[in-house]
Amino acid sequence: MNARATMTGGIATGMNEIGMRAKAGAAYLRTATTHDKNHALHQAASAIRDRAAQILAANARDLENATTLSPAMSDRLTLNDARIEAMAKGIEDVAAQADPVGRELARWTRPNGLDIARVATPIGVIGMIYESRPNVTADAAALCLKAGNAVILRGGSEAAHSNAAIHAAFVEGLRSAGLDARCVQLVPTTDRAAVGEMLKGLDGAIDLIIPRGGKGLVARVQAEARVPVLAHLEGICHVYVHAKADAAKARAIVLDAKMRRTGICGATESLLIDRAVLPSLGVAILKDLAGAGCEIRGDDAVCAVFAKAARAREEDWRTEYLDAIISVRAVDGVDEAIRHIDTYGSRHTEAIVSEDAQVAEHFLSALDSAIVLWNASTQFADGGEFGMGAEIGIGTGKLHARGPVGVEHLTTFKYIVRGAGQVRG
Amino acid sequence: MNARATMTGGIATGMNEIGMRAKAGAAYLRTATTHDKNHALHQAASAIRDRAAQILAANARDLENATTLSPAMSDRLTLNDARIEAMAKGIEDVAAQADPVGRELARWTRPNGLDIARVATPIGVIGMIYESRPNVTADAAALCLKAGNAVILRGGSEAAHSNAAIHAAFVEGLRSAGLDARCVQLVPTTDRAAVGEMLKGLDGAIDLIIPRGGKGLVARVQAEARVPVLAHLEGICHVYVHAKADAAKARAIVLDAKMRRTGICGATESLLIDRAVLPSLGVAILKDLAGAGCEIRGDDAVCAVFAKAARAREEDWRTEYLDAIISVRAVDGVDEAIRHIDTYGSRHTEAIVSEDAQVAEHFLSALDSAIVLWNASTQFADGGEFGMGAEIGIGTGKLHARGPVGVEHLTTFKYIVRGAGQVRG
Repeated sequence: MNARATMTGGIATGMNEIGMRAKAGAAYLRTATTHDKNHALHQAASAIRDRAAQILAANARDLENATTLSPAMSDRLTLNDARIEAMAKGIEDVAAQADPVGRELARWTRPNGLDIARVATPIGVIGMIYESRPNVTADAAALCLKAGNAVILRGGSEAAHSNAAIHAAFVEGLRSAGLDARCVQLVPTTDRAAVGEMLKGLDGAIDLIIPRGGKGLVARVQAEARVPVLAHLEGICHVYVHAKADAAKARAIVLDAKMRRTGICGATESLLIDRAVLPSLGVAILKDLAGAGCEIRGDDAVCAVFAKAARAREEDWRTEYLDAIISVRAVDGVDEAIRHIDTYGSRHTEAIVSEDAQVAEHFLSALDSAIVLWNASTQFADGGEFGMGAEIGIGTGKLHARGPVGVEHLTTFKYIVRGAGQVRG
Repeated sequence: MNARATMTGGIATGMNEIGMRAKAGAAYLRTATTHDKNHALHQAASAIRDRAAQILAANARDLENATTLSPAMSDRLTLNDARIEAMAKGIEDVAAQADPVGRELARWTRPNGLDIARVATPIGVIGMIYESRPNVTADAAALCLKAGNAVILRGGSEAAHSNAAIHAAFVEGLRSAGLDARCVQLVPTTDRAAVGEMLKGLDGAIDLIIPRGGKGLVARVQAEARVPVLAHLEGICHVYVHAKADAAKARAIVLDAKMRRTGICGATESLLIDRAVLPSLGVAILKDLAGAGCEIRGDDAVCAVFAKAARAREEDWRTEYLDAIISVRAVDGVDEAIRHIDTYGSRHTEAIVSEDAQVAEHFLSALDSAIVLWNASTQFADGGEFGMGAEIGIGTGKLHARGPVGVEHLTTFKYIVRGAGQVRG
């Protein structure tokens, strides 16, 4: 992890060399077969298992240095045998998925005989910038490789030794499978200037930046990047309980959506309840939440029916708590719920609980969020739960891909046109 | 066209108000029906026909002011009855296309019973920044509206009166159809600061910027934009004549690819010829080109067999001439051709002429360009020729969409999940 040792010509030069190697790796991968890629992934998984002792030793060094981390961050940084096995298994799961490259997305013949096919291709070079969790090193490498992309990995400094050990094992696997190791590179310095260089695109080498981490990291990447960014900003997710909600479903869904895990982006942060059912079903739901240890911040109507509720302030409607806190508001019907979500939401994931199909379909179609659910918990906002396999993140932008981003959306496409001498004339 | 008259609170405030109106327009369009949109498009086409006299009068004012324009630019700016009719017909053609919104792109059921659909939705608000051709005002408005997007149009100052007149007619059509006119706005000032505000995103209102114009405009937009950009940078397109090319096809394709129209982005700028056929087929092709008035800039091998050729310099391989000039190089087989295109091309459109299917398929798969053709002219790089209807541009980036961008790719998607009370538990 010594920047000087590996980047003797300075950060910019060293990073641009990484970019050039990545471009060569991407060119190599454009014609790699499915078998080539899957074989390399299996070898990488084996190498990670074989090198578990080295990876754990490197992780121990990171944990020794990590004296200022919160318990939650420390837990995210910690590796053990089970987590290493999960990492290796995760790589094998990616190998088992269908190859997203080469899929014929559309094909048609023109009146002049030209045969036009839209075919999925790799994006090229992906720059991955992430924080603390060392398993992202293996997950991102596997997903990018499966989709035929070279990847440049830049992990957090707290996990530098762990990331280096995981990367070394992964690359050893690639080499033993005969795959070009330039396809998966780890930035060998924790100098923050390296991130700045990546955001400038490494002289045109990087096609896409994917940040994965806290809001601060993602905001910096979005503000500074000169190349496209697939960003996951925040999940201010809502559940709307309609007047015609089934009470049992509504209680189960709200409790799960908020409390199953409070720290994930698909956790519900705001609850909207139709005024008509607030004193009945609404109070039952609020009791469930309070009983599970959730703090409730309500509007006037909520505070009037539920004494334990604190008064919500304007900023509460815009807050991703990632904690056992929920903001709750009474609304007069689905259109007011939609307006609230349009105004305060982050277009991530929203759910309606209702037995009225017409109202539910209106909610599903009118909202402009990546995921909209009817009678199901917002905590299903997850690539695995969607059956996509591993996800590289959940996109909150609107271009290229939204929601859980798996291997399928780590591709782009090109048009292949086959003719018999046609000219436009 | 008086900035002060319409933006009394200053450019930033005035532009942000335009952004807020566009967001309201986009929310309205999210639930507009296909019939609503098509009816409005037909009314807009009628209004443009009805107001032809006013549009021509406005265009005459622009042409009076346009004393410093080149003849080509002046031609692009000029409207006449035929061009106004073409504009109206173009809007009706967009109305006749299939509605891209609401398409079910994928749908599956999870083991827990959740029904997941990936459904095409509008992007939201599109900022369109373009130069001189006033017909873009109508074309872009129609395409964005069809795909359910609100659009903010910012045309070139030379065409300010023409754009305002076309926009006024278009909006009159929308109003007479009962469609919210906030869906199609024209920036009512030629102050360049307005473009800067659009590139900042108008306080989160703009989801996508599409620049259409010269390299200078597109480069400025890419450098300054804080929101996603769908850019068309340049088309350094290649034809590669393989040793096993059919001579007649090769001669016809190269002549068409270079000379049919030299000023469009799909025009070929560089010709690669297998060394083995350079003295025979190669010379015949060069004679065709020279005979049609094309200047030839060749490498040593080309200059040796064709006396009229000038010596190409390194920069010639990187130049989009948009003129009757071509750079020509001898190569030793398909892999050298691929390497040349990878090094110097702009990943827009490339063609191979060959009767050898294996070589051709290798070329088609190895190249990372938006469009690759086998035995057909690069001048087919066009939305109309692809059967997509009108295009808003040809994308040279790799994210979201590449190649001709029609209404289909002016959409994004969301996931609609229908359940029966499922919780993640």
